[in-house]
Amino acid sequence: MSRHIAGHDLEPLATGSWILGTGGGGSPYSSYLGMKNFYGSGGSVDLLDPAELADDDLVAVLSTMGAPVVFQERMPDPAFAIKPLRIMEAYLGKRFRAVMTVEIGGCNAFQPLLAAAASGLPVVDADAMGRAFPEAQMQTFAIADLTMYPHVVADIRDNDVIVARAATWHALERVRRKVCTEFGSVATTCQAPRTGAEIKRHAILHTTSRAIALGREVRRARAAHEDTVAATVRAAHGKLLFRGKVIDVQRRTTEGFLRGTTRFAGLDGDAGSTFEIAFQNEFSVGWRDGTVAVTTPDLICVLDSVSGEAIGTESLRYGQRVSVIALPSPAIHRTAKGLEHVGPRAFGYDISFKSVFAEDEVELEV
Amino acid sequence: MSRHIAGHDLEPLATGSWILGTGGGGSPYSSYLGMKNFYGSGGSVDLLDPAELADDDLVAVLSTMGAPVVFQERMPDPAFAIKPLRIMEAYLGKRFRAVMTVEIGGCNAFQPLLAAAASGLPVVDADAMGRAFPEAQMQTFAIADLTMYPHVVADIRDNDVIVARAATWHALERVRRKVCTEFGSVATTCQAPRTGAEIKRHAILHTTSRAIALGREVRRARAAHEDTVAATVRAAHGKLLFRGKVIDVQRRTTEGFLRGTTRFAGLDGDAGSTFEIAFQNEFSVGWRDGTVAVTTPDLICVLDSVSGEAIGTESLRYGQRVSVIALPSPAIHRTAKGLEHVGPRAFGYDISFKSVFAEDEVELEV
Repeated sequence: MSRHIAGHDLEPLATGSWILGTGGGGSPYSSYLGMKNFYGSGGSVDLLDPAELADDDLVAVLSTMGAPVVFQERMPDPAFAIKPLRIMEAYLGKRFRAVMTVEIGGCNAFQPLLAAAASGLPVVDADAMGRAFPEAQMQTFAIADLTMYPHVVADIRDNDVIVARAATWHALERVRRKVCTEFGSVATTCQAPRTGAEIKRHAILHTTSRAIALGREVRRARAAHEDTVAATVRAAHGKLLFRGKVIDVQRRTTEGFLRGTTRFAGLDGDAGSTFEIAFQNEFSVGWRDGTVAVTTPDLICVLDSVSGEAIGTESLRYGQRVSVIALPSPAIHRTAKGLEHVGPRAFGYDISFKSVFAEDEVELEV
Repeated sequence: MSRHIAGHDLEPLATGSWILGTGGGGSPYSSYLGMKNFYGSGGSVDLLDPAELADDDLVAVLSTMGAPVVFQERMPDPAFAIKPLRIMEAYLGKRFRAVMTVEIGGCNAFQPLLAAAASGLPVVDADAMGRAFPEAQMQTFAIADLTMYPHVVADIRDNDVIVARAATWHALERVRRKVCTEFGSVATTCQAPRTGAEIKRHAILHTTSRAIALGREVRRARAAHEDTVAATVRAAHGKLLFRGKVIDVQRRTTEGFLRGTTRFAGLDGDAGSTFEIAFQNEFSVGWRDGTVAVTTPDLICVLDSVSGEAIGTESLRYGQRVSVIALPSPAIHRTAKGLEHVGPRAFGYDISFKSVFAEDEVELEV
């Protein structure tokens, strides 16, 4: 059923989507402030159940792309979010029925809300990653081998590029990444238009609702002075992997990504151990005392041990008390085809995926 | 008057356009072979006098862009030349009346002929540089502040980008250069569509005819065992600046360009002197014994002292006997606005332009 996103859902959406960002996707905070402002002036946004889409409804798949650290300086706003959608409509000569995000993790959870604020279009309660991933070919529509073009990349200035055709999803990713870097490492996109039928079949459904529910639970636990990390693990059927403090962070902003590693020294039951995580925008592989402990597509999340808020790869810093948790991935990511797109080898690690979750353990569901 | 380009005009066009390339634009040789092949199988191409264009006729401005050294490996052909034109027609929802080149210097002299071979469209006898220059904002349409978008960049594979809008000509150049580099440093373009009125007012007219006539004169002198360099200087109202041999070449392929310097030791009357030239695809500034002797927009051409054929920045090599000549630039390049776009400062040299030609000396005309 279609429903309004309530004003009091916005803060939980920020908390929940930041956890699902697995370190990447950019902090949702400034997008959240933008939407809070819109609600404060009487606006509101409709959330559309994907089941309500007609098979031939056309949906705009939106994102902000680039280096998350830049998003903190050039804050998202409705006009920038809607710009590539309007360019795509002019290019197609068709109007969109609704908007959705390419990824529910991080600030892009709010991208269709910002576009909705500028257009009145409803937001489809779904995404194409169930989390955040750094590259275009990591979306479920790529795993399903759907067409990847046309794809609009818009600059905050008067510069706009349409990738009219691309030979492969990887070719699309490479060229749009170069364009984005030239645009200052921040751009908004309107990706290949999707039909209602494609979304119902290939998107990860109800992820906006899921992020809101997860955020609500964290905030409830915090207000009740309960263990917020335990609350997230319980609500999202996850596992606590490590508790410690940050003792090292190495980052480099390169080729349009934030790459690096971070290392934690164990505390409490993990005292004497270390945990290291490598990232490309998002956390990809974790090692406990030098042995692989967890890899993508399991969701690797680093939370503030007290507040339960997620910590992004760009905001990790020495001395933070952190908890590493894993959440189960959407089933599509664990198929052979899914692993080609988002498994450890897709990130350059010669490691076979072995989930920290047994086969019969449930998917992320709050 | 519209006329056929004769088969026996193709080789002179290659010779003349390579001289007007001022070291850049890429050798026309393989494009010439492609057209020779087309003519050999009974094809021919019409050359249209710009005066015959109606004011609202739409003309496709075409080019191959990238690193000339790559063009030698991935040879130009009609299908690749016409590809961005067809994408532009689909984007605009309009058909073109004719084709023209963005630059008469180097292989792009043949680009509209290749497109004509694939489409039957006539080639407008004009270009937007009167020579070759490395960047988009160096064309006369940029000097005239005409709109720079849409601009199509096509890959030889199934990758195509439309720059739908650009804030400035420089912004267009930067983003299309990144795309071209990602495409393997070779791409074909269909630049912002131009009307007949714009061409008649702002293009450099009759430059295809001029290149053919120049090439004919070089070849006539060669057959008659005359001094080919002197023949070019006389025919094009140029000046001989230096005769010598190549003693040094430094090249780096960087940011989508071929940059570097070359140094010549004097022979004959120039014995004891040296001449150094800096280039960015094309020759930009020349120094005789450490003192500035010639700068863009004067055309700086390096010719084989015997054959009179031009030598490109990518084909300079130790020991070649060379003659450096200057040819007068089109008048538009010597205006204050023109110098902003193509003067020495536009190439990063803190030098004021002083032509080697007196004010009353004529423009390049054969």
